Amino acid sequence: MATLQDIGVSAGINILSAFIFFIIFAILRLQPFNDRVYFSKWYLKGLRSSPARGGAFVQRFVNLDFRSYMKFLNWMPEALKMPEPELINHAGLDSVVYLRIYWLGLKIFTPIAVLAWAVLVPVNWTNNTLELARQLRNVTSSDIDKLSVSNIPEYSMRFWSHIVMAYAFTIWTCYVLLKEYETIADMRLQYVASEARRPDQFTVLVRNVPPDADESVSELVEHFFLVNHPDHYLTNQVVCNANKLADLVQKKKKLQNWLDYYQLKYARNNSQRIMVKLGFLGLWGQRVDAIEHYTAEIDKVSKEIAIEREEVVNDPKSIMPASFVSFKTRWAAAVCAQTQQTRNPTQWLTEWAPEPRDVYWPNLAIPYVSLTVRRLIMHVAFFFLTFFFIIPIAFVQSLATIEGIVKAAPFLKVIVENDFMKSLIQGFLPGIALKLFLIFLPSILMIMSKFEGFTSISSLERRSAFRYYIFNFVNVFLASVVTGAAFEQLSAFLNQSPNQIPKTIGVAIPMKATFFITYIMVDGWAGVAGEILMLKPLIMFHLKNAFLVKTEKDREEAMDPGSIGFNTGEPRIQLYFLLGLVYAPVTPMLLPFILVFFALAYIVYRHQIINVYNQEYESAAAFWPDVHGRVITALIISQLLLMGLLGTKHAALAAPFLIALPVLTIGFHRFCKGRYEPAFIRYPLQEAMMKDTLESAREPNLNLKGYLQSAYVHPVFRGDEDDDDIDDKLGKFEDEAIIVPTKRQSRRNTPAPSRISGESSPSLPFSGKEV
Amino acid sequence: MATLQDIGVSAGINILSAFIFFIIFAILRLQPFNDRVYFSKWYLKGLRSSPARGGAFVQRFVNLDFRSYMKFLNWMPEALKMPEPELINHAGLDSVVYLRIYWLGLKIFTPIAVLAWAVLVPVNWTNNTLELARQLRNVTSSDIDKLSVSNIPEYSMRFWSHIVMAYAFTIWTCYVLLKEYETIADMRLQYVASEARRPDQFTVLVRNVPPDADESVSELVEHFFLVNHPDHYLTNQVVCNANKLADLVQKKKKLQNWLDYYQLKYARNNSQRIMVKLGFLGLWGQRVDAIEHYTAEIDKVSKEIAIEREEVVNDPKSIMPASFVSFKTRWAAAVCAQTQQTRNPTQWLTEWAPEPRDVYWPNLAIPYVSLTVRRLIMHVAFFFLTFFFIIPIAFVQSLATIEGIVKAAPFLKVIVENDFMKSLIQGFLPGIALKLFLIFLPSILMIMSKFEGFTSISSLERRSAFRYYIFNFVNVFLASVVTGAAFEQLSAFLNQSPNQIPKTIGVAIPMKATFFITYIMVDGWAGVAGEILMLKPLIMFHLKNAFLVKTEKDREEAMDPGSIGFNTGEPRIQLYFLLGLVYAPVTPMLLPFILVFFALAYIVYRHQIINVYNQEYESAAAFWPDVHGRVITALIISQLLLMGLLGTKHAALAAPFLIALPVLTIGFHRFCKGRYEPAFIRYPLQEAMMKDTLESAREPNLNLKGYLQSAYVHPVFRGDEDDDDIDDKLGKFEDEAIIVPTKRQSRRNTPAPSRISGESSPSLPFSGKEV
Repeated sequence: MATLQDIGVSAGINILSAFIFFIIFAILRLQPFNDRVYFSKWYLKGLRSSPARGGAFVQRFVNLDFRSYMKFLNWMPEALKMPEPELINHAGLDSVVYLRIYWLGLKIFTPIAVLAWAVLVPVNWTNNTLELARQLRNVTSSDIDKLSVSNIPEYSMRFWSHIVMAYAFTIWTCYVLLKEYETIADMRLQYVASEARRPDQFTVLVRNVPPDADESVSELVEHFFLVNHPDHYLTNQVVCNANKLADLVQKKKKLQNWLDYYQLKYARNNSQRIMVKLGFLGLWGQRVDAIEHYTAEIDKVSKEIAIEREEVVNDPKSIMPASFVSFKTRWAAAVCAQTQQTRNPTQWLTEWAPEPRDVYWPNLAIPYVSLTVRRLIMHVAFFFLTFFFIIPIAFVQSLATIEGIVKAAPFLKVIVENDFMKSLIQGFLPGIALKLFLIFLPSILMIMSKFEGFTSISSLERRSAFRYYIFNFVNVFLASVVTGAAFEQLSAFLNQSPNQIPKTIGVAIPMKATFFITYIMVDGWAGVAGEILMLKPLIMFHLKNAFLVKTEKDREEAMDPGSIGFNTGEPRIQLYFLLGLVYAPVTPMLLPFILVFFALAYIVYRHQIINVYNQEYESAAAFWPDVHGRVITALIISQLLLMGLLGTKHAALAAPFLIALPVLTIGFHRFCKGRYEPAFIRYPLQEAMMKDTLESAREPNLNLKGYLQSAYVHPVFRGDEDDDDIDDKLGKFEDEAIIVPTKRQSRRNTPAPSRISGESSPSLPFSGKEV
Repeated sequence: MATLQDIGVSAGINILSAFIFFIIFAILRLQPFNDRVYFSKWYLKGLRSSPARGGAFVQRFVNLDFRSYMKFLNWMPEALKMPEPELINHAGLDSVVYLRIYWLGLKIFTPIAVLAWAVLVPVNWTNNTLELARQLRNVTSSDIDKLSVSNIPEYSMRFWSHIVMAYAFTIWTCYVLLKEYETIADMRLQYVASEARRPDQFTVLVRNVPPDADESVSELVEHFFLVNHPDHYLTNQVVCNANKLADLVQKKKKLQNWLDYYQLKYARNNSQRIMVKLGFLGLWGQRVDAIEHYTAEIDKVSKEIAIEREEVVNDPKSIMPASFVSFKTRWAAAVCAQTQQTRNPTQWLTEWAPEPRDVYWPNLAIPYVSLTVRRLIMHVAFFFLTFFFIIPIAFVQSLATIEGIVKAAPFLKVIVENDFMKSLIQGFLPGIALKLFLIFLPSILMIMSKFEGFTSISSLERRSAFRYYIFNFVNVFLASVVTGAAFEQLSAFLNQSPNQIPKTIGVAIPMKATFFITYIMVDGWAGVAGEILMLKPLIMFHLKNAFLVKTEKDREEAMDPGSIGFNTGEPRIQLYFLLGLVYAPVTPMLLPFILVFFALAYIVYRHQIINVYNQEYESAAAFWPDVHGRVITALIISQLLLMGLLGTKHAALAAPFLIALPVLTIGFHRFCKGRYEPAFIRYPLQEAMMKDTLESAREPNLNLKGYLQSAYVHPVFRGDEDDDDIDDKLGKFEDEAIIVPTKRQSRRNTPAPSRISGESSPSLPFSGKEV
């Protein structure tokens, strides 16, 4: 049992390590040669260029101005300075709303912490149950337990204060959630209705276009919408199955990297030809001249690309039964996206088109029946993943013992039987199997979501986040509280009565407080502080810089700013909401630690969003209903567990008061869902109409067709050096191919504008702005 | 334990009673004076008038043609004769689809019964487990049990046949359900898109119009839709709060009935003045002259009505913030109904307008927040009703003992202590309390649905049906299988582990087979046969005929044909689906009894729908998703119970195969929901557009505004003698009051056309057709 001293020591260590991270960060970020890693967002926006070209050679790499090191925590107030509207412009609404999740945590838990410390801590402290237990039955307990509900004797009337507090916490949480939902719904509508014209405002994604013997997909779509939306249809863009082409382009890029690497190497020690082996990892196989080999390979792939391109553009089979249909007005697009088109609701499915950069192209062609089957399979697979993942891992761990290794590879026997190696393997290997799995888990979940057939990256991430949350809940929260692997818990819960389950967990809750406090400090404090170092991108950048970078353009590509990572970040925050709400009425001791986490994370992520992360897409905060729903879930779980805990304390009189809480909370959730969720799914006609009217008054002669014509072109066809002919050929599918010059200029030095600015403008009219 | 002989006797009795009902029915229906009871539908359609006016006096009341009695089961083939399309015209789509529920039962259970008897009965019969148990442990068992799964020893491999059959049953049921869903979705779309013009095709119900200081509701609605649906808006009709007025009109009608009664009585023995007492039930109070009294009362109420009418029409406060908005095309109405109008999704809520006669007027003005709260309250209330209804009833029953009565009313002591009275009270009273509750239950559920705020009668009935089904499941099915009151079961289930519950129920299932066979025969066979007698309407009609009827119009009103009663009928059928599916793999013996029920009920209800029931509204089979969902629920329950049962038989190997079944069934359900449910909620734009184009080609000069102007007038304002001035006054709220003459002619002799024909045409253009 950890005492207050233990916690203090642990806190000291974690604060210290966080501090060390900040100091290292402060030093690293001031070095000009790290500039592109720690200010990548600004480079991507084109607002910052490689520093101090004119200065001394050394100053180009190392910052020698010692005064700047003094103010090493300077970035913190700076990160807080940028006002919200500017931040929306700078980094998009998604990022801003993501930050508001941390802010929400602060808003919820600050008053709760104050109240809990003012009321519950004295109530808990002034008992001597644990003291008596220690004296009479020699039961040990820590100081932290004295602050928790465990210190109150059974049948005590003091439990009423916990119940009243549970009500207060619930009401406060719901109130904050309600206000926040309202604010964010407003922000979203404001953002969607903002002045900027965006192709997705006018466009609807049509899927499952039925096959037709006489007409091409494009013609069929055009005819259908000319008939059924006669006054509003503008144009459509078919979707090509360019997955193979995209793979080839990717392959070519990799080969080009290797070629660059060997050319650079050759240039440095120019006498020697460089030979490589073609086998596995360059360890064996035929030796060939590296530069010649890669040049030949690139030629081969380039030819393949050309053929594949030809095929994609000309072969009707590569046209997928899906299309992006654009309308003359936002109103008409809103109407089409919200209505059903035909009798058969599995054909002509319409939905809001995601932003062009948010589209997940490979999934656009999946037919309806397949979607249902895929979804079912993934539900079942996820169930097994959550509850039984430990079994294959245990199997791998059993192999990863000394005996296993010796059995599998006898020739390693000599190495393995060395004493040092032995302890190393026994100490590390089993842990590594689990750690590797946990590292790959988000990718596994992402692959599962992709298999399920979502059509936008944002929805893929939302689904992955949902699954990651459940996985965390079962395998981190429950597994820590009720010790045991998930499948053991599953069988335990199946064999327990439903009203016994909250008791089992509830009783264990106060005992695990110290564990979770440590967890928060390690994962929340030090982990968040570590995030700011950007270790992986830093190393990768310098490696690439050393071996691949020839031009400024290459250097641009070597940056890997990353993005928020909603699919892993949000479930992690939710774990803190869960811990906070569960422990608030039980062990208020835990709350300050959570507050520190939220505050620290808020500052760190605000800094990262301003300076580093590059937004991959903009979903206009479409994830908020999920965030809201999960906080409500945490609230209900906390209420049930409190009920279970008090049940074992024989505070039976209180039960009816506690049962009312989850019922009311569910009622509140349903209200919020009905009241605010539509703002995240539908686009109100009034807004669309207002915007249309305004626009037609301001720009009566707007060439909307030109603007929308090629907004939804598959990414392999855009921003590529040799896509002139492709454009011409794609033009065949469009009735009036208006050729748009911007698409042809290389965008490598400032990446595709649609990847940066919220208002993506894929074609001419606004290209001037971006430069 | 019932033996096969017992079942045989019981079957004989029930078949006999069904037969007797049919004979009585055959006699009664041939008597001309019952004609209006047994052929009311034809009277309402105006296709039949009072019989044989010219004939002999006796022949007007009694059928003396004895040959007609010979063919007393004639109505059965006749009921089956009318083809489905004609039946849709005659009675509406709702009735036809309702009949298809019985038909669905036959389609599902006929092959299942054949298969079960061919495979499972031999498999079960050729064991001797029960025989051995009888010999060794003196456990008694009936012949029926020998046919059931109980007769198979533990660990037997024979259970595989049950598992294979469970798969076969599931696949077959799903296949039939899928085909049926497809057919009915088609029928619905066909019906909605049928030639006839209906006001609800063009109209959208707008609720929660926000208050505005400067404009009236009607102006506000007009402005809003002129702005946001500029090319499509046609007209709107505000909703008046005429609930009080409707009550007064109802009261006047009742008084008028009494006046008629006394006038008739006075006319028969013309000398004597009739005196009545004004107190409770006419038992005490002041004695007054009846005719004078009622005439005065009617005058008073008439004045009140006039004042109230004035108020409703002139007072802006009586205008509710809701309106029926009509559009120029079906397309525009479909668009408006399916889209969100404003940022705030609790204002300007749009939904398809129900048919005019389907509108539930009192609920149109409930604001959004109130709806959420009401729904929550009703969920909680229903939970208590289902699980704890027995407690107040037990309390009443405890009062209804001899001691209770004596205590409460000592003066009854003399009567009560009579031996005969004593046994009578003890035998009957407790049962009556429960019976009364069960009789009133559908009304209670209906009141709950009304409180929840649904806006159409059809949705009220659907919600009531859902709740009645759950009530039946808990209090009839579960309470019969696991004997005990619902709340005892609830506490038992809360204290049992989740995988124990299916076992507890599953084990009890085979033992209750004989009980349910008897239940099916009494409730299903004799009950359905009794339905055809129409006892209550028959008695009421003759009573009214004797005491109230003065004119032909009064006689028309004395008919009470009733309607299908979806809210009670459908849950009852579902109980048979549940029993059939649960017992199919366990005790196939039960299946033939269910088949007889479905066949008999199909014929009887087809006859009733053709000849008697008067359709109250037409929802175009909107209830089918509910029916489908409940059959799927029954299927899943049956699979879980089979799993539980086999679990106790130690057929553990089989478990994984059985777990897959509910998972697959849920997958199937999700597929059906996605694929077919939209057809029951949305109106596809393609259909609407086709219909619009056709109509504009056929009738280019149609005065649609005139047609729609007063389609949605509150029923108290229509079909009333003195509504000329009301029309004029209502006209004030409409910008161009086109006064529609048909509304003024009394419709009492053929009731309001909208109550009969599927295509309601409330105003002029088609009134010619109806006569």
